[in-house]
Amino acid sequence: MSSEVRFFFEPQSVAVIGASRDPSKTGHIILRNLVESGYKGEIYPINPSANEILGLRCYKSVLEVPGNVDLAVVVVPARLVPNIIEELGIKGVKAAVIISGGFRETGTQEGLKLEEELKDKIRKNKVRVLGPNCQGVNNPHIGLCASWPLVKSKGPLAIVSQSGTIAAAFELWAEEEGIGVSKMATLGNKVDVDETDLLEYLREDTNTKSIAMYIESVRNGRRFLEIATETSLRKPIVVLKSGRTPSGVRAVASHTGSLAGSYAIYYSAFRKAGIAVAETIEELYEIAKGLAWLPRTDKDNIQIVTSSGGSGIVSVDYAEMLGLRLASLDESSRETLRSKLPSHCIVGNPLDLTGDADATRYDEVLSVLVKDPNVDIILTVFGDPIPNASDVIKKWFNSGKTIVPVYIGGGSVEIIERKKMHESQIPTFKTPERAVKVIRALVDYSRFLKINQMM
Amino acid sequence: MSSEVRFFFEPQSVAVIGASRDPSKTGHIILRNLVESGYKGEIYPINPSANEILGLRCYKSVLEVPGNVDLAVVVVPARLVPNIIEELGIKGVKAAVIISGGFRETGTQEGLKLEEELKDKIRKNKVRVLGPNCQGVNNPHIGLCASWPLVKSKGPLAIVSQSGTIAAAFELWAEEEGIGVSKMATLGNKVDVDETDLLEYLREDTNTKSIAMYIESVRNGRRFLEIATETSLRKPIVVLKSGRTPSGVRAVASHTGSLAGSYAIYYSAFRKAGIAVAETIEELYEIAKGLAWLPRTDKDNIQIVTSSGGSGIVSVDYAEMLGLRLASLDESSRETLRSKLPSHCIVGNPLDLTGDADATRYDEVLSVLVKDPNVDIILTVFGDPIPNASDVIKKWFNSGKTIVPVYIGGGSVEIIERKKMHESQIPTFKTPERAVKVIRALVDYSRFLKINQMM
Repeated sequence: MSSEVRFFFEPQSVAVIGASRDPSKTGHIILRNLVESGYKGEIYPINPSANEILGLRCYKSVLEVPGNVDLAVVVVPARLVPNIIEELGIKGVKAAVIISGGFRETGTQEGLKLEEELKDKIRKNKVRVLGPNCQGVNNPHIGLCASWPLVKSKGPLAIVSQSGTIAAAFELWAEEEGIGVSKMATLGNKVDVDETDLLEYLREDTNTKSIAMYIESVRNGRRFLEIATETSLRKPIVVLKSGRTPSGVRAVASHTGSLAGSYAIYYSAFRKAGIAVAETIEELYEIAKGLAWLPRTDKDNIQIVTSSGGSGIVSVDYAEMLGLRLASLDESSRETLRSKLPSHCIVGNPLDLTGDADATRYDEVLSVLVKDPNVDIILTVFGDPIPNASDVIKKWFNSGKTIVPVYIGGGSVEIIERKKMHESQIPTFKTPERAVKVIRALVDYSRFLKINQMM
Repeated sequence: MSSEVRFFFEPQSVAVIGASRDPSKTGHIILRNLVESGYKGEIYPINPSANEILGLRCYKSVLEVPGNVDLAVVVVPARLVPNIIEELGIKGVKAAVIISGGFRETGTQEGLKLEEELKDKIRKNKVRVLGPNCQGVNNPHIGLCASWPLVKSKGPLAIVSQSGTIAAAFELWAEEEGIGVSKMATLGNKVDVDETDLLEYLREDTNTKSIAMYIESVRNGRRFLEIATETSLRKPIVVLKSGRTPSGVRAVASHTGSLAGSYAIYYSAFRKAGIAVAETIEELYEIAKGLAWLPRTDKDNIQIVTSSGGSGIVSVDYAEMLGLRLASLDESSRETLRSKLPSHCIVGNPLDLTGDADATRYDEVLSVLVKDPNVDIILTVFGDPIPNASDVIKKWFNSGKTIVPVYIGGGSVEIIERKKMHESQIPTFKTPERAVKVIRALVDYSRFLKINQMM
């Protein structure tokens, strides 16, 4: 299974069926993004009435393409899609992403009929299909952006999504932060390849350090949970599941024609499989980012260190509200800190270094905290423009404790320092609340690993 | 009261007591920010051992300054502050912001004693004081950034904060989005001017369209609620209150030496006064932004319109989870929409315009929805790079319905379109969840106005 799914992400050549000369059309945008993302394999635009698009030679049909075609991206009207699948079968194309909408999701008899016809053609022609009604795939590690908008930043996060927009937002946030994605796949109506097939592939993908999923339904619950559990033992999965309310369930049925099912059942099954459950789109991203890179810890004694008293209190409140524990420093740490720090600093939890703190003061404090037996997690909140914050975090990040950096209120210095940490594979967060939510997911995931003797 | 508080935000001249030549010192940074923010009044650096800093003539003491001084920003060590207040009194300075820390918040006998001495000097010298232990004030409308980091964007949002970092983050977010702030004030230990004094001033400030507050304690609960209620009748207030948990209460006592009190009591008192209550720092910002500009509505039938099926479902789920109502379109609207829209669009709630939707399609739909009697709020989610989205929203924003725009997954087009809406005083949101939280606050606030016959 996994070996076939590979062709969606690692094709040697790509055909765009329905490539267009009109820059506003999806058939043009995808071709352009493939070119601009720097894909090194062969690209074949298929268009019966064009000779050349974007400097690439066009073919009237995929059957005219001289070489092999591993992946086809299909952007023609729905009614033409079943015949295209037949052609792909003849040509021996391994995988097809069907962007075109107009199938079951329309709720019409015609759409339903077309989707059945499509399924029939897939079975007969042995082409693996992603979609229809989806937003394509992206693998920045080989410059394959067969989707939109153009996203080129490669990183550790995989996103699998039943919504193209949510996948795109996820990719754009990862790009903006200088983190990047490993793989992106949108599911659409899931006539063939589903979330579980993608999990199986991503489980083995060495570039993927965590897997985020937005799903409206799961096609085969039993198989999904089996594969998800196995995957969780190797890398973290985060899910945002919609259809959580009666109105949401109805909306899911309209969107991709699937049954959302009971959220309570999904929720407990996810948790049993070691999956972190996100409540919002931003949480999906933040948890995936945190779990990709943060050292695991099944113990949750959190010590907060900050130059911002207010942010420290917000952190303490939020951690306690989410049921996490606050560390009580060892007496010898307290003594050392009191002797090292200026008298106006407050040695407690939060440990308030006050507004005049510089990177050196954070460094001194971390050197003590990483040795404190009462501390498991150090939530380090830079609450001012503090240059070289990244150097201090880099120095202690692999100390054995879990250090979670937050940078807030730091203006242009913050932007530079956060990017530097991301370059060093250290996740950072914009607010204490985001970080605390991630810590809770991290502790839960680590406990799953521990129970399963993987930690 | 209000007339004296005015000098913190609208001084004709400012003295920086403890101005420094060292670019890393707060006494330098504040002076530089005053210069760079474009303050047009006189600026007097006070430093006994310098002749000139940043091209400005220095004075050995405020008593040597030739002209009047309205506002003094004090950045000298704590032990020197009481005497400085005496000098300010002699000079007839109206207002002083004391940045210096080292008072009650240290928890030491010495700090406590210094703070009592400071209070005594304030009483005797009739100088109004903000702080100590605070991060200054900002009024971008006259280019007065007596704080850090440098923030120059002027806009409708006021932020009053017991944490300098939270105020700074708020200002930076408003700047990044092209929205800006009206006034910023940090409270610190509140030896004199408190949250209520600032509310009284901001209530009358025509540049302020909404007031955000981060507070750890309220000095005089009765007076606060009285003034807050009066203020709420004229413009919205949003509060993030910390000290919500036992650990948070303890941390508040260390930070600014104040008593956090029972959160449950605060919460119900806030709600009674028409105040929106934020749960996170980001919510504080988003709600302030939304309430500043969104048309009021005490009815909550939400219709969702989107090009992104997934985002639509997330919106529906989240609205229902927060107890809001989903509109059921009038039959004539349904018919009109079905006849106007392509057949693959789904006329429901969400109204799914699908991924090929352009601004024209949104325009057509909004023209129908603004007339539908069953719809109060139109949550308009642009889920793709849709050029000219801002034009459509501008056209219908004052239609009588409350239109709440979300832009997600739109890449560079999104950035341009969101800025354009912000320039037209239309708030936009990055995710459906953020918008739904704001809608709930808006409906609650509108109901408060309605009950009090102000709407």
